[in-house]
Amino acid sequence: MSGSTLGNSFRIMTWGESHGAGVGVVIDGCPAGLALSEADIQQFLNRRKPGQSRFATPRKESDCVEILSGVFEGITTGTPIALMVRNENQISKHYDDLASLYRPGHADFTFDRKFLHRDYRGGGRSSGRETIGRVAAGAIASKLLAELGIDILTFTKSIGPVEVPASAYCFDEITGNPLYMPSAEYARKAEAYLDELRMQQNSSGGSIECIVRNMPIGIGEPVFDKLDACLAKALMSIGAVKAVEVGDGAAVSTTTGIENNDAFTTADGKIVKNTNHSGGILGGMSDGSDLLLKVAVKPTPSISQVQQTVTKDGMPAELSIHGRHDPVIVPRAVVVVESMVALTLIDLLFENMSSRFDKIKQFYSEETS
Amino acid sequence: MSGSTLGNSFRIMTWGESHGAGVGVVIDGCPAGLALSEADIQQFLNRRKPGQSRFATPRKESDCVEILSGVFEGITTGTPIALMVRNENQISKHYDDLASLYRPGHADFTFDRKFLHRDYRGGGRSSGRETIGRVAAGAIASKLLAELGIDILTFTKSIGPVEVPASAYCFDEITGNPLYMPSAEYARKAEAYLDELRMQQNSSGGSIECIVRNMPIGIGEPVFDKLDACLAKALMSIGAVKAVEVGDGAAVSTTTGIENNDAFTTADGKIVKNTNHSGGILGGMSDGSDLLLKVAVKPTPSISQVQQTVTKDGMPAELSIHGRHDPVIVPRAVVVVESMVALTLIDLLFENMSSRFDKIKQFYSEETS
Amino acid sequence: MSGSTLGNSFRIMTWGESHGAGVGVVIDGCPAGLALSEADIQQFLNRRKPGQSRFATPRKESDCVEILSGVFEGITTGTPIALMVRNENQISKHYDDLASLYRPGHADFTFDRKFLHRDYRGGGRSSGRETIGRVAAGAIASKLLAELGIDILTFTKSIGPVEVPASAYCFDEITGNPLYMPSAEYARKAEAYLDELRMQQNSSGGSIECIVRNMPIGIGEPVFDKLDACLAKALMSIGAVKAVEVGDGAAVSTTTGIENNDAFTTADGKIVKNTNHSGGILGGMSDGSDLLLKVAVKPTPSISQVQQTVTKDGMPAELSIHGRHDPVIVPRAVVVVESMVALTLIDLLFENMSSRFDKIKQFYSEETS
Amino acid sequence: MSGSTLGNSFRIMTWGESHGAGVGVVIDGCPAGLALSEADIQQFLNRRKPGQSRFATPRKESDCVEILSGVFEGITTGTPIALMVRNENQISKHYDDLASLYRPGHADFTFDRKFLHRDYRGGGRSSGRETIGRVAAGAIASKLLAELGIDILTFTKSIGPVEVPASAYCFDEITGNPLYMPSAEYARKAEAYLDELRMQQNSSGGSIECIVRNMPIGIGEPVFDKLDACLAKALMSIGAVKAVEVGDGAAVSTTTGIENNDAFTTADGKIVKNTNHSGGILGGMSDGSDLLLKVAVKPTPSISQVQQTVTKDGMPAELSIHGRHDPVIVPRAVVVVESMVALTLIDLLFENMSSRFDKIKQFYSEETS
Repeated sequence: MSGSTLGNSFRIMTWGESHGAGVGVVIDGCPAGLALSEADIQQFLNRRKPGQSRFATPRKESDCVEILSGVFEGITTGTPIALMVRNENQISKHYDDLASLYRPGHADFTFDRKFLHRDYRGGGRSSGRETIGRVAAGAIASKLLAELGIDILTFTKSIGPVEVPASAYCFDEITGNPLYMPSAEYARKAEAYLDELRMQQNSSGGSIECIVRNMPIGIGEPVFDKLDACLAKALMSIGAVKAVEVGDGAAVSTTTGIENNDAFTTADGKIVKNTNHSGGILGGMSDGSDLLLKVAVKPTPSISQVQQTVTKDGMPAELSIHGRHDPVIVPRAVVVVESMVALTLIDLLFENMSSRFDKIKQFYSEETS
Repeated sequence: MSGSTLGNSFRIMTWGESHGAGVGVVIDGCPAGLALSEADIQQFLNRRKPGQSRFATPRKESDCVEILSGVFEGITTGTPIALMVRNENQISKHYDDLASLYRPGHADFTFDRKFLHRDYRGGGRSSGRETIGRVAAGAIASKLLAELGIDILTFTKSIGPVEVPASAYCFDEITGNPLYMPSAEYARKAEAYLDELRMQQNSSGGSIECIVRNMPIGIGEPVFDKLDACLAKALMSIGAVKAVEVGDGAAVSTTTGIENNDAFTTADGKIVKNTNHSGGILGGMSDGSDLLLKVAVKPTPSISQVQQTVTKDGMPAELSIHGRHDPVIVPRAVVVVESMVALTLIDLLFENMSSRFDKIKQFYSEETS
Repeated sequence: MSGSTLGNSFRIMTWGESHGAGVGVVIDGCPAGLALSEADIQQFLNRRKPGQSRFATPRKESDCVEILSGVFEGITTGTPIALMVRNENQISKHYDDLASLYRPGHADFTFDRKFLHRDYRGGGRSSGRETIGRVAAGAIASKLLAELGIDILTFTKSIGPVEVPASAYCFDEITGNPLYMPSAEYARKAEAYLDELRMQQNSSGGSIECIVRNMPIGIGEPVFDKLDACLAKALMSIGAVKAVEVGDGAAVSTTTGIENNDAFTTADGKIVKNTNHSGGILGGMSDGSDLLLKVAVKPTPSISQVQQTVTKDGMPAELSIHGRHDPVIVPRAVVVVESMVALTLIDLLFENMSSRFDKIKQFYSEETS
Repeated sequence: MSGSTLGNSFRIMTWGESHGAGVGVVIDGCPAGLALSEADIQQFLNRRKPGQSRFATPRKESDCVEILSGVFEGITTGTPIALMVRNENQISKHYDDLASLYRPGHADFTFDRKFLHRDYRGGGRSSGRETIGRVAAGAIASKLLAELGIDILTFTKSIGPVEVPASAYCFDEITGNPLYMPSAEYARKAEAYLDELRMQQNSSGGSIECIVRNMPIGIGEPVFDKLDACLAKALMSIGAVKAVEVGDGAAVSTTTGIENNDAFTTADGKIVKNTNHSGGILGGMSDGSDLLLKVAVKPTPSISQVQQTVTKDGMPAELSIHGRHDPVIVPRAVVVVESMVALTLIDLLFENMSSRFDKIKQFYSEETS
């Protein structure tokens, strides 16, 4: 099957390994008529670029994207858009000893068992660099959404025990700290926590929140392709994500119907909900309230602390991962989460266009007139 | 697009509304050679059937399944298997007043906005009866898994504040109580809690846990079709599910790398993990440990307590839902969760067969010899 | 994989065997808001119904269709539409001797080798009755097309050596003869030819032509999902079809560029082609001229003349197929061809809606305003 | 939708325009363990490379392929294989005047109407260079088939009126002439015919035949994904193809049942057919005989003879296409046909692996033991 393909109407296929020639993506289904430049994409990629703070690996990678097709005179043509980032700064020797060792928390073991032959250098296909293709495509999806008036806000909700309460959210501060937290104050606490862990050669988990504003109503398909179902798949497909929550999420298990139901009322002549426990989704379709999503991100598995493991042959071995790794994945994953949400929304927005026959008739009557 | 289709190699398409002629499913991709009877499917359907305890709606529905195609002389033929359950006991008048009202927590509003024209009777396509198709197909997927030696255990982890700690799990007791809890003692506590809520005309949320044992290693595709990603979509597509967790789930956000990494070791000459924080999945592929999944289920939105809402035209209205509804969705959802997991696993097991060329060559060499 | 699923935005899944409980189809992706009754579908099914002339099997089958879901108060709801036709008049004993024999020109042998276990009664899944699901879904696709102003005309082009030249086409006469030929005169000649063959216990091949008028321009996707490519797959998937031609078809191999190119000009202020060698498709997209399609249909393989064959075990055997079979497949296949074309066009018309971003923006601006 | 994606288990996505940065393909679903080098692919690409004879455009293009991912130490890893060919020798000025003119027989008009904004340089996405991605992927599919013992033979059947009769086939001579005809003698006749047409500034159509030997039995799925249906789509998706025939093809329309049925018999203890009118396919599944396929290719639409056309604004215009074009497409299309067949067969071979449960059980019992 095709594990590197996502989406239907807006379909992407990503490729590339950490230490191969490069990484990239092809987008099949981007409509014609969008103004698009490499700068639009680069700006998104830079948000996941390493080496920007002491909380991200000091690896210097320019990660410059090249548009290879699908754009003519600065406008998309409706044909596949191929994007590529050449790999640089590959120090494979750091990884040579990993050819025969299975790193705990990594995919070395499962890749080996599934495919027998794997590119072990830097994690190969399971490296964080795999997300470059997602983010490059996500930049295009985000630009399409922006032009439709849909706005996605993504930020670090927590790092280890340091969680920003909703009451303290100050969205202007998100880009003001290297951790992308909506609070400079909590960001400082989190930085202190991370400094401590780094001294212990350890790493931290965290969580990311995503808020989508101004969604049209009715996006998402009933039953299996529900909006929340498609978002859950997209978000859980991010390597380190272990939990996905919508609206009140896990908390609904301890609540009651009268508390959890969002009452309908009207505002400015429109039907709205008094509350948003549902997180903007009812019956798998957007209900007009903000989409509220949250994911839990596991700690960076690559730590320099000594760990017990085995070789390919099952011989016991000790492992201490040197090289350069993030003490926490969360900050660089923020833009990956935003990209996966954007890719999912655009795909479902396009799917939705054939839901009602009156709209289809109108579409083609204009077309033919 | 096709919101009622799930899977690729083992593909199902469900159909049917609460008060239409019936509900059903077609399975396209079930291999030939499986012994299959209506009893195999009925047994699964009975686990979601209402009227079995005071914690489920007293509606009496026989929900008898009919195999319409794909089985000849008790054996599957490899052609599509069509399954149908006729609707009975439909008291539409209960719902006539709901034609113009939007029930809080239900899909009435979003269905109306997406499609303009909806079958409002009993929730139509968004009724719990929609899951009959899932469970009927899930019964077949489960039988295939069982013959492959893969075993799925699903149960109620919590109802409201009453949560069974893993230390108290007694799996033999699951079928011994109407709530499918792995502890008779906690089940009694939960029943008391539900009785109280019912007197308040209220309902409760809860959570369901699923454990899959004896998974082959390497199932799931890297990147977008990861095992956990596909499971997350399948589980989040269940109407009332608001959170999906794998392994330690949301808890990973507050843990550290050294705590969260599962060390590799050997046992009986096989490479295994010392712990299972990962929930049996590394890099999106099964790692040989048990799969550990958990979902949060929201409280039944249909409560007889008076709620504020609006009419289709936005006029304020008061709503008190009578008719017959479960005080908690969880017990009947247990088999739905198990079905969605089974459907996802079978699909990925089939996909996985073309991952390695040595296995493909072996397959066809036998074929042609 | 899923051999019984067709389409993407307008997806159908068919099911059923010749002598099972019935045959049917589920349509996932039909938009909401189409007026639809069982009569709309029955009328289409009747065009393929046997027993209507001496050139079709005298089997009497009522083939009454039942709408099981997706339609409420006579209007489609946007949810899956399940359609079923119960099987009747099944005289399985006619086929008992075929359990162990491979009929020449039939799928008995290949089904046996692929699946090992097959429903041999009346050809099981490879029976002509499999097309009932296609035609039932095709009736809905055709109604959607008609409301979009797109008109499909399908007829018998030739039976054996009797071919109606385009110069003799009189479309009013198509329904006036049992062979659906656009010429009463040629129909009489073809009937005489068929009478002769029947006396010889033999059967005849033929060809079917399909003309689609008033197609919007630009339908079909460049590269792999070209309009002609999708039509070719849909048409070649009809059991007896062995060739598919578009426009001048096979004749282009002996022509030259200057002859084959259709010059552009203008008429009524619109850009049109002077000729239509292309058959209404350029670069895989509709060009505004009529779509011109032609398929070749092989002779009915079931003949009562004695044939040489083998048993499952490879033992030589003589076969003389009795029971009731059409001396020619073509007339009953006309509506199947029309259905496959309609299903393909609707799917591509829906896909096309997300080709241009200006149209998408317009769609959602209306949506949200 | 995604017009540049083909296949399911072995999925490819192609990209690139004639005068953009390059053209390429990503293959998602190639199994791990295949030895693969750039030379394997280059050798295939060279068969479609221009400038090799006076019957192909003298454009000199090196068309050097680069493997960007999915191969490690010369062996495929099971992850996506990205292949790229940089564009060179782009003389865009040749095409500047075509920005506003619609070339007869080309996709300029339909691209413009579908997408509004198009890359007109050299036909952009509809250029023959689009097939480079197909052929690069086809080279991999062909290598997989070869290792499974399946052999594809493709050649020029006819050019204009010069058709090689089957009786004259000498397959050793195919590569001995620039037209890839299975007869040096007929190739000379065809060359003479082409020289004449070139002097008339005209071009010729032709036909291509493809024979697949040693197919396993039962490949292809019943109903919609029949082997012949999938092949028809793949072949009709080649820009210039206007007809696809299987086995006796269009000729079946004038034959009778007793003539067209292939009698079964046994040879070397295997069940075989006495004849092969079916072209190796019964009921949409391979029947063990050679696959016999034929396509009709239209004449090169780019001719320097003066043609009538219109501008984008509908103004009448005269067009004489200079620049460098093939007098016939057929010879360079031979490897494209072979590639499309190979891609389709591999995809269906992989799909077929989950058809029988006994084989699946065997697969996983080996896996887990």
